[in-house]
Amino acid sequence: MGEEVISNKQVILKHYVSGYPKESDMELKNSTIKLNVPQGSNVVILKNLYLSCDPYMRGRMKKIEGSYIDSFTPGSPITGFGVAKVLESGDSNFQKGDLVWGMTGWEEYSIVTPTDQNYLFEINDKDVPLTILESLLFLQGMPGMTAYVGFYEICSPKKGETVFVSAASGAVGQLVGQFAKMLDCYVVGSAGSKEKNKFGFDEAFNYKEEQDLDAALKRYFPNGIDIYFENAGGKMLDAVLLNMKLHGRIAACGMISQYNLEQTEGVHNLFYLISKQIRMEGFVIFDYFHLYSKYLEMIIPKIKAGNVVYVEDVVEGLENAPTALVGSFLVAILVSKL
Amino acid sequence: MGEEVISNKQVILKHYVSGYPKESDMELKNSTIKLNVPQGSNVVILKNLYLSCDPYMRGRMKKIEGSYIDSFTPGSPITGFGVAKVLESGDSNFQKGDLVWGMTGWEEYSIVTPTDQNYLFEINDKDVPLTILESLLFLQGMPGMTAYVGFYEICSPKKGETVFVSAASGAVGQLVGQFAKMLDCYVVGSAGSKEKNKFGFDEAFNYKEEQDLDAALKRYFPNGIDIYFENAGGKMLDAVLLNMKLHGRIAACGMISQYNLEQTEGVHNLFYLISKQIRMEGFVIFDYFHLYSKYLEMIIPKIKAGNVVYVEDVVEGLENAPTALVGSFLVAILVSKL
Repeated sequence: MGEEVISNKQVILKHYVSGYPKESDMELKNSTIKLNVPQGSNVVILKNLYLSCDPYMRGRMKKIEGSYIDSFTPGSPITGFGVAKVLESGDSNFQKGDLVWGMTGWEEYSIVTPTDQNYLFEINDKDVPLTILESLLFLQGMPGMTAYVGFYEICSPKKGETVFVSAASGAVGQLVGQFAKMLDCYVVGSAGSKEKNKFGFDEAFNYKEEQDLDAALKRYFPNGIDIYFENAGGKMLDAVLLNMKLHGRIAACGMISQYNLEQTEGVHNLFYLISKQIRMEGFVIFDYFHLYSKYLEMIIPKIKAGNVVYVEDVVEGLENAPTALVGSFLVAILVSKL
Repeated sequence: MGEEVISNKQVILKHYVSGYPKESDMELKNSTIKLNVPQGSNVVILKNLYLSCDPYMRGRMKKIEGSYIDSFTPGSPITGFGVAKVLESGDSNFQKGDLVWGMTGWEEYSIVTPTDQNYLFEINDKDVPLTILESLLFLQGMPGMTAYVGFYEICSPKKGETVFVSAASGAVGQLVGQFAKMLDCYVVGSAGSKEKNKFGFDEAFNYKEEQDLDAALKRYFPNGIDIYFENAGGKMLDAVLLNMKLHGRIAACGMISQYNLEQTEGVHNLFYLISKQIRMEGFVIFDYFHLYSKYLEMIIPKIKAGNVVYVEDVVEGLENAPTALVGSFLVAILVSKL
């Protein structure tokens, strides 16, 4: 391959953010890129198709230390999960034309070096119809894996248990509910709106309409909650602790209500962890990719059979990515069609 | 046996308590008791020797609902763990003259019905010298079992890990530290005084002398904490969360700093459960008595060899029990000598 240099639109983090991120913390840059793999290099050149816009990414815009993940680098493109097509590869695990899922950049083309920290998975299932390509990012990507690991590995669910999911209309939440229904669990979700029927939850409520979260939970769980999939934190966690059953389990996946507060809300009811013998466990998907093929075995037949539904906003064009990152928490960015 | 009726001094809960208990919430009563087992009954008549005075008992003086344990009954004796001698038994598992450990009353003589909820264990080891009888209550009783279950079962400890114990001079805390040292762990305890050498901890500090608990923990754990044995709650838990290592474990045994506050302190740093992938698990010893014989197998040789030390206040006489319950959290009450 020659020395083809082409233009590469990028979304750049301008500087570390403090407080809630603004669109002006990012800028669009028209850069250029050489689409060839240097002799002896193991880089993979990707054409990005879909990029995932996830709530945890807002945290990476801050200067963080000692966390499970690094800050983004000011002056460089935002990075995150995406679906891409391999244009050239110096890594024998990937071939030109492969569809891949993994960590890539918020730009039209990315040069990545696959490592343990820098995941890249080939999407093996070549006969996935294009109509469900959009689901790859979500169902076969980070949200799907997160819901799977959090529910099956962390919560030790049993058939018929009662399950509560906060941020239930989020990418992860809507799948947790569906996984729980597959185990014949009773599932209630809370969200900032009320769209239970879309995901087959038994019940749903809009936490913004509830004066008293404890009373709302008692209404839906008169006998208590076996499993709480925690995406909210703060007051919701406090209300949930009041309503957990003995030997309940809490998978702590996110605490979205707390991310952009100057001072986090204090949680007052932790003594119930003791009196009800509750296990609360935080997890981060980066440590569970050894289960990825097991997850795909479970989910791909369900995707093909249309047994898993998802609701996702798709924003077209990198130029709309900063707005999506600041404003929403369930968006995929379409960079390029296949 | 005839109809022997003798006097029975009792410590009675006068009424449910709100706020911090006072001595005047209890009263001494000179009652009487018949020391015979009615025909066909399975009760066991105990002569109480030692009674354990534990922090959790103050909680039982309040009107509580939906907890792992009931309130005490106003008008009836306080109940708790004790060592006793069997005077008469209608239960074939116990014989006259047996030494037993289990749930009994704060009175000279108790009539108990052993059940799953109402534990009574025979102390099999007849050759325990009388000089270590006092240790039975503590090392072979609830504090020992609690330390064992919390450390070995909940914390999944590995050789050489770093362990922090709050309320380290308490009945449970001092044993957790010793169990951790047996696994070559590095152990630091915090307490309201500084008595590390008594229990062989590596380091200890007095939390009352520390302006900044986070800084204190960083001083003793520059590389972070693998295991936290939680007896404190509140501000200490918040400081610990800042200093836990990735994949740390927290056994939540008690939150003594919070028990008698009108409003518990809010805990602000729970997001670290996620970013550090921490497992925090509450436990109550009542659900782990199936491990009791396994625990005794471990601890009895160590007691006999003098390899486990303990510091315990012994208060003589039931008339001093109310003061002990209100004032201290590491006291045994000597009711009667063997």
